[in-house]
Amino acid sequence: MTELDRESVAMHADLHGKLEVHSKVGLNNRKDLSLAYTPGVAQVCQEIAADPKKVFDLTLKHNTVAVVSDGSAILGIGNLGAEAAIPVMEGKAVLFKEFAGVDAFPICLATQDVDEIVRAVRLIAPVFGGINLEDISAPRCFDVEARLQDLGIPVFHDDQHGTAIVVMAALLNALKVVGKTLDQCTIVFNGSGASAIACARLILSYGDLGRAPKPHDLILCDSKGIVHRARTDLNPHKRALAERGNRRNLSGRLADALRDADIFIGLSQGNLVTQEMVRSMRPHPVILAMANPTPEIMPDAARDAGAAVVGTGRSDFPNQINNVLAFPGVFRGALDAAARVVNEPMKIAAAEALAAYVIEPTPDRILPDPLDKQVAVRIGSAVARAARESGVCR
Amino acid sequence: MTELDRESVAMHADLHGKLEVHSKVGLNNRKDLSLAYTPGVAQVCQEIAADPKKVFDLTLKHNTVAVVSDGSAILGIGNLGAEAAIPVMEGKAVLFKEFAGVDAFPICLATQDVDEIVRAVRLIAPVFGGINLEDISAPRCFDVEARLQDLGIPVFHDDQHGTAIVVMAALLNALKVVGKTLDQCTIVFNGSGASAIACARLILSYGDLGRAPKPHDLILCDSKGIVHRARTDLNPHKRALAERGNRRNLSGRLADALRDADIFIGLSQGNLVTQEMVRSMRPHPVILAMANPTPEIMPDAARDAGAAVVGTGRSDFPNQINNVLAFPGVFRGALDAAARVVNEPMKIAAAEALAAYVIEPTPDRILPDPLDKQVAVRIGSAVARAARESGVCR
Repeated sequence: MTELDRESVAMHADLHGKLEVHSKVGLNNRKDLSLAYTPGVAQVCQEIAADPKKVFDLTLKHNTVAVVSDGSAILGIGNLGAEAAIPVMEGKAVLFKEFAGVDAFPICLATQDVDEIVRAVRLIAPVFGGINLEDISAPRCFDVEARLQDLGIPVFHDDQHGTAIVVMAALLNALKVVGKTLDQCTIVFNGSGASAIACARLILSYGDLGRAPKPHDLILCDSKGIVHRARTDLNPHKRALAERGNRRNLSGRLADALRDADIFIGLSQGNLVTQEMVRSMRPHPVILAMANPTPEIMPDAARDAGAAVVGTGRSDFPNQINNVLAFPGVFRGALDAAARVVNEPMKIAAAEALAAYVIEPTPDRILPDPLDKQVAVRIGSAVARAARESGVCR
Repeated sequence: MTELDRESVAMHADLHGKLEVHSKVGLNNRKDLSLAYTPGVAQVCQEIAADPKKVFDLTLKHNTVAVVSDGSAILGIGNLGAEAAIPVMEGKAVLFKEFAGVDAFPICLATQDVDEIVRAVRLIAPVFGGINLEDISAPRCFDVEARLQDLGIPVFHDDQHGTAIVVMAALLNALKVVGKTLDQCTIVFNGSGASAIACARLILSYGDLGRAPKPHDLILCDSKGIVHRARTDLNPHKRALAERGNRRNLSGRLADALRDADIFIGLSQGNLVTQEMVRSMRPHPVILAMANPTPEIMPDAARDAGAAVVGTGRSDFPNQINNVLAFPGVFRGALDAAARVVNEPMKIAAAEALAAYVIEPTPDRILPDPLDKQVAVRIGSAVARAARESGVCR
């Protein structure tokens, strides 16, 4: 246990949790009580019953998000169950509040069954204006999210799309730094989890929607090596990527994929990428090595081997790729626009707003500081605009 | 719509709901972020996974209660569904916070199926230290509550037990005022909902547990008249009361039950009790007429007909019988004692503490002011003590 670990445990024990529910109204006399509760509140209920969309005007729903987890994939730790997930979900709610003024509440579910998770979210949805899914293991997370898209409020799996938005922004700015465009680039992903697949999908969407040229190629590697069409062990999500990318139908290992590639995006494990692999890439490679706590290759080693831009998940190196740059602004924008979903145009608007926030990207600054509270404001406006323009608002 | 109704709607629209989620930690630098969220929080998760009871020390669970409704019996209004229930559940959460410092969060379920309600509560339970069921219609509410008693945290249906505790306290003090004891009294209930049945049950428990003499008799009336053993239309809850009370096996109407009775407890509809009925009761009758907004008999009329003590649900007459006198303190005590349930001794301790709070009861003061914030403190201590003494703590 590190000193930081000890300090964090002590802080949590001292605070007894990081969230509180506050009342916006005081109760100091009978009048207060009769306005906030009975008998006055009865008319408020009647108004909503008569016109259900008023629930967004008269209750907490308009600004309240559930942070929902089943505890099956907590951070990089693994499957620890619902109770052990609470500190992360509380932390997420703290970030929602501090960065975007969103009232978020942790919902940790005592089940890891997809049907039950989906049903539970539907049952609790009336109180919430949005659902942030979190730390649900792949490939279950894809089903859970897909099956909830008809809920009428945004349902967003942050491990997928939050990561994808920030990686996309990092990539856009890294390409400016190295003077390449996407259609010139082969992108190699390492990682088979929700985030790697979502990143690859968003880059493809970006091309599909005509916001940028499509990448020259996109190759996914998992723990068994390169994902290619002849493999029989692929889930449908990996198979779809093998069919859209890997145009030379390469097989082999990560080192084979990286040869002559331009970009490495790691969402896997520490120390999997060697300097030799970096040297085998095309000139000015971009390395986004986001394994936590140890990156796939340490930034100094990557740079020594010729990497032009290096990003990691860590706060002690430049270019920290952290979801907090995305999800608060995404929900701020979705709630403000009364969006029924978070669609691809909204995700891309978030990535572009995040990239544009850095006026002049440099090798050491492709993303803003994760603590910069203006970022969520900027992303929020862009996401709200994209929601309105794409016609997904109530 | 009354002026108060209009004012309440305007207040709700202005505030956009009555609750906010607050963070106890600020996020001003990288250290803050690494303690409240990653990487520090990972160790907090590990501690809980290794020792599940630490969830009460390290998260919001220890002080957080879900206020759960299906919207099937909202106040006196009826079945308006989940969204329309939110203003009441938010109001309840405001009362929890203001009167007992409990962090309560509304959960309004998009189902009215008993199995689904039970399952949903089980699924969301990990985050909560207690469950307050609210505005779920009878007789479904009895099943829902009974099936959740093994959850390991207190599950308390306030419409039943909150009301029963306050009525029990009112009754204890009213009896002091009129100089009678329970074994001398015939008590007549009017109302077939959850609250009437729960009140009757708590009075019987009180005798069963030897805290007081058993009532001479206890007669329940519903919309079809006196509940007696020959009726074939009784649900099991009413049947059980018909078997324990109504010793003369009376049939007929409310007026027949009230003849020679000592106490009337109304949880039904306005204007059902006449002065003639009050005059037919034994000397110094006690009338608790709690129908809202119009009592079963207005206090002046009851007193003119000889009632010695009159209580109502209204704040504009003496002796307001309001649940807010009970539930905040009950949960405060249950949470503080780490109780696994709210059992009969805890309910009785709450009723006795509430009654004892009024040092010298008078006809116009059998209960404290519902806005007196010391009441919950006193009830909380008594409930926590009863929980420890009855061996139901973790």
